[in-house]
Amino acid sequence: MGKRGIGVDVGGTEVKFGLFSGEGELLRRWKIPTDRTDNCANVIRGIAESIRREMAADGLSLTDLAGIGMAVPGPVQPDGFVEVCVNLHWKKRYPARELSGLLDGVRVEIGNDANAAALGEAWKGGGAGVQDAVLFTLGTGVGGGVILGGKILNGHHGIGGEVGHMHVRDGETEVCNCGGRGCLEQVASATGIVREAKRAMENSSAPTRMREFGEKITAKDVCDLGRAGDPMADAVMETVARYLGIAISHVCVTVDPEVFIIGGGVSRAGSYLIDKIQKYFRQYTTISQNHADVVLATLGNDAGIYGAVRMVLADGKE
Amino acid sequence: MGKRGIGVDVGGTEVKFGLFSGEGELLRRWKIPTDRTDNCANVIRGIAESIRREMAADGLSLTDLAGIGMAVPGPVQPDGFVEVCVNLHWKKRYPARELSGLLDGVRVEIGNDANAAALGEAWKGGGAGVQDAVLFTLGTGVGGGVILGGKILNGHHGIGGEVGHMHVRDGETEVCNCGGRGCLEQVASATGIVREAKRAMENSSAPTRMREFGEKITAKDVCDLGRAGDPMADAVMETVARYLGIAISHVCVTVDPEVFIIGGGVSRAGSYLIDKIQKYFRQYTTISQNHADVVLATLGNDAGIYGAVRMVLADGKE
Repeated sequence: MGKRGIGVDVGGTEVKFGLFSGEGELLRRWKIPTDRTDNCANVIRGIAESIRREMAADGLSLTDLAGIGMAVPGPVQPDGFVEVCVNLHWKKRYPARELSGLLDGVRVEIGNDANAAALGEAWKGGGAGVQDAVLFTLGTGVGGGVILGGKILNGHHGIGGEVGHMHVRDGETEVCNCGGRGCLEQVASATGIVREAKRAMENSSAPTRMREFGEKITAKDVCDLGRAGDPMADAVMETVARYLGIAISHVCVTVDPEVFIIGGGVSRAGSYLIDKIQKYFRQYTTISQNHADVVLATLGNDAGIYGAVRMVLADGKE
Repeated sequence: MGKRGIGVDVGGTEVKFGLFSGEGELLRRWKIPTDRTDNCANVIRGIAESIRREMAADGLSLTDLAGIGMAVPGPVQPDGFVEVCVNLHWKKRYPARELSGLLDGVRVEIGNDANAAALGEAWKGGGAGVQDAVLFTLGTGVGGGVILGGKILNGHHGIGGEVGHMHVRDGETEVCNCGGRGCLEQVASATGIVREAKRAMENSSAPTRMREFGEKITAKDVCDLGRAGDPMADAVMETVARYLGIAISHVCVTVDPEVFIIGGGVSRAGSYLIDKIQKYFRQYTTISQNHADVVLATLGNDAGIYGAVRMVLADGKE
């Protein structure tokens, strides 16, 4: 077996690690809380110390590593520069170089976390080894990542795969986190689904079991009720799936991947959601019905560490 | 100077040829009518004969060629398979292999004509040598092409860069050539601009000099009047530019190229159009203002032969 690799997924509350064999088998995982003291100034140091500690516990040295891949929650320039990483209060840093410097110069590659998740899913998850895949992650927000030729497409300015901020809906009055109005994220995230559900209840006096949940209704509640046949909840999910289908169609006629992968908490709605998305994707992609399939993500929270390590275990880095 | 190359741009009415130096200098161009006899069965043979004739006239032999690049008006699969090429009545053919077979096995590469134009513009036109560019061609229809890493992105099913058929407008009642409703092509092509102008005149009794042109008004008339300050014509062009800005924004948050290039007959409106497109592109790309520039194409009808030859003069082929 070749040299091992480590995948690191840096989040705002915890940092996930995975130790992988040279063939990409996840040997074990661990995590540490994200050190938020001093405006997150010590996060990289904490990661370095954790890696040294765990390597030693396994009787491994840094020279046993092919490298470390790191996923961070913000845009990453092609040279590894992070202009700003809001969740971690980072500004103008080269996190991969910092980590490498603290670990005797081991190779460290860095990528955006959504892009890394896409790479992980394309490699070992829903994509099952395809070279060209696009991931839509439906969580609190909507993220995404574009994988072409088995590599992350970061884009020239680090905003490749930011599909959550496609303007898909004219007439939206509320403002998105990005400052826009009508972004995909505003309707297809867990937050967006809840908003759509509340709007539907406000705009109609029709009966729906969604009302039983009151203000605390969640995206899962809406999905569950829709699947169970509640007409208003199902109509909300039709709207969500319609905008997702349109956005996927946009990406399809741009990069035409082999597969679209739907991940994130909302994707637990499973085939109920996927079938609706496929229906609208077909409806809005009239140029050709010979196009990518839409499948569910399979790696869950491990997608980031898989994609991160892929950046150093093979040529998964742009 | 290295071996020469030939770029061939196969259209429904004529076939354009360019003989290039190994460094990509256009040495001379010629063209022949597209042989439409027998349902276009002899087009490839006509191309082969024309190349033999012109090479002989220049005292060159086929072994003086690095290769021939061919652009065709239809989707091309990664292996060169053309499922269908409507304008040429072609079905299930390998045109590049056919041409190579008729020319003593010289290397022949093939690509979609819109993608080839994008490669040409990225290489020697509006992109001026960039590696990552997306072309929108605003002609009778709206075509496009995505260039990443200096190479054409054909896509897994041959529909990469088909940006004219993005669904950008809900509520459109007329049907697009592709069978969809609300495609970018329906508003931003020359045909679409005329339709928008006629709709504007029907829906308003306000004065506009557009009425002087009657039924025969062209996209150029609308652009010219808009630039000259006719309020209704200008409003039509605002609508056109808005949907273009939205579509460009979609592509931006997907592949994030270095530059967007606007070509085709409508692009002769110049900075009047480009400035409007940039305004809406910025407005709908709130995730980041650090993104690609929008520029005009510069190669005109030669874009196809430049892009075609680039496929064999360097590694411009996916």
